[in-house]
Amino acid sequence: MMQLKVLLVAGTHGNEINGIWLFEKWQKSSLLINTHGIKTYKVIGNPEAKKAGKRYIYSDLNRSFLEESFLSINSLNLEAKRAKELVELYGNKGENPCQIALDFHTTTASMGSCLVVYGRRATDLALAGLIQNKVGLPIYLHESDKEQTGFLVESWPCGLVIEIGPVGQGLLNSEIISQTKLILENLLEQIKNINNLNLLFPDKLIIHRHVKSIDFPRDEEGNINAFVHPLRQGRDWHPLKKNDDLFLKLDGETINYQEKESYVPVFINEAAYMEKNIAMSLTKRELWDFEDDWEKSLIDLVFQ
Amino acid sequence: MMQLKVLLVAGTHGNEINGIWLFEKWQKSSLLINTHGIKTYKVIGNPEAKKAGKRYIYSDLNRSFLEESFLSINSLNLEAKRAKELVELYGNKGENPCQIALDFHTTTASMGSCLVVYGRRATDLALAGLIQNKVGLPIYLHESDKEQTGFLVESWPCGLVIEIGPVGQGLLNSEIISQTKLILENLLEQIKNINNLNLLFPDKLIIHRHVKSIDFPRDEEGNINAFVHPLRQGRDWHPLKKNDDLFLKLDGETINYQEKESYVPVFINEAAYMEKNIAMSLTKRELWDFEDDWEKSLIDLVFQ
Repeated sequence: MMQLKVLLVAGTHGNEINGIWLFEKWQKSSLLINTHGIKTYKVIGNPEAKKAGKRYIYSDLNRSFLEESFLSINSLNLEAKRAKELVELYGNKGENPCQIALDFHTTTASMGSCLVVYGRRATDLALAGLIQNKVGLPIYLHESDKEQTGFLVESWPCGLVIEIGPVGQGLLNSEIISQTKLILENLLEQIKNINNLNLLFPDKLIIHRHVKSIDFPRDEEGNINAFVHPLRQGRDWHPLKKNDDLFLKLDGETINYQEKESYVPVFINEAAYMEKNIAMSLTKRELWDFEDDWEKSLIDLVFQ
Repeated sequence: MMQLKVLLVAGTHGNEINGIWLFEKWQKSSLLINTHGIKTYKVIGNPEAKKAGKRYIYSDLNRSFLEESFLSINSLNLEAKRAKELVELYGNKGENPCQIALDFHTTTASMGSCLVVYGRRATDLALAGLIQNKVGLPIYLHESDKEQTGFLVESWPCGLVIEIGPVGQGLLNSEIISQTKLILENLLEQIKNINNLNLLFPDKLIIHRHVKSIDFPRDEEGNINAFVHPLRQGRDWHPLKKNDDLFLKLDGETINYQEKESYVPVFINEAAYMEKNIAMSLTKRELWDFEDDWEKSLIDLVFQ
């Protein structure tokens, strides 16, 4: 049996500064965060981007954890090098191996706080289930999106992204900082319970499963020619019904939701995703049974 | 008597994209904006910064209109060169001389829409008065701040900044775009009235006169160690009273407002101003008599 070690990352995107600020304060006063006795390593994901006040310098760090690319070291840009470095320092076979990675992000979209899991790893779903049971955060399951890969947490045996918002890029906000602290402490409390094999899992999990992302309407030259409809702005997590207003052109023409299925939109008009041609993502709200395998996978983290 | 010509600028800051988007749409469908017959030139202030998704590349374009510096052309950076170019194209002695410049900006602070005038130029106060009378926008009079100089509109005989918000940087928002269109059309309507010498001035002007900007509290190393108090966040234009909560430290300590005078805060926690060490600006709300000279100065623009 081993002591779980946890990698905590803020500032994977350099303009998401609330987590960075909290970590820097924590560095100075170690009692600021209740770690529940868990050994943590806290790092700023992309310090160069933070200095520049940008999401990234060359490429999105949170799409740069593509381990097959780490081999061609000479051709790596700043973010790919940083990804390689973090894996070498804190990865499974690294200097200070961590079993769990928690990656703190913020959104400009009005999503409140939520957890993001990538794919259907048993460890991630188990930890997310523990947190949902305790704090009630929604879970966004990102999968089946070949355009978006190489996420940080995928390089650890267990890992979650925590999204907290809404807050503008580059902006300190007291509520966002308090939320980050609260969720961080709750996560560490649950991880302590794993470590002590004192687990209380829910029977069910509410999952918002990624179905697809949709782009802004564009003209023949590829320029955006409609914006998110005022009735849709800020309505993340509210299911869409057929013919709901989705986008609005300046001349007043409305573009409506045409799916038969009542998908749930998230990341509506997220500032960071405009460059990714994502106006919003559509998810399907599902109730999943909590599986015994998931529980076992967390216990295996302790006994590995 | 001459026909007034108006320079319209969006994207002086490259990450304030709503005005840019509106101008680009307008370029394609010339009837989108009612110009009330006024001759306009519309330009994107800093197209390079817009491409980069940043406020600026080397320095803030809206602090780069320092005409004495234009002489040393070899040492000019991208923004100083652009400032010089805009003056050569549309300045008083330029190729297409404009008498009035309107510079469209957005804020992340919750200020709604407002007009900014720099110093006490009669023409600016007269035009701002016409607009306030018509649309009711607050006027922020920026002066006595030696740290902040070289604003675009100061290089034209008459010029206003229009701030519209709140909206995140890099984010399209339908309400912000509609507001921009509405205010632009109202400005052009009032300018038509100047041109036709059909002027209806108010007796009084409500001015929020800049007194000073205040920085975030900082520790001995110069790092920000308190954020805007939750009770203050989003409360732009609401007068401060002695002992009101201003900033909050993570340990719960509150920093209170200590001035005797009840100043009115603006640009509270504005994302773009963090780099300028401005947590908010304090203004004094004053009722000014509308002066005859101001009216005459606008008429002189037509007869010059």
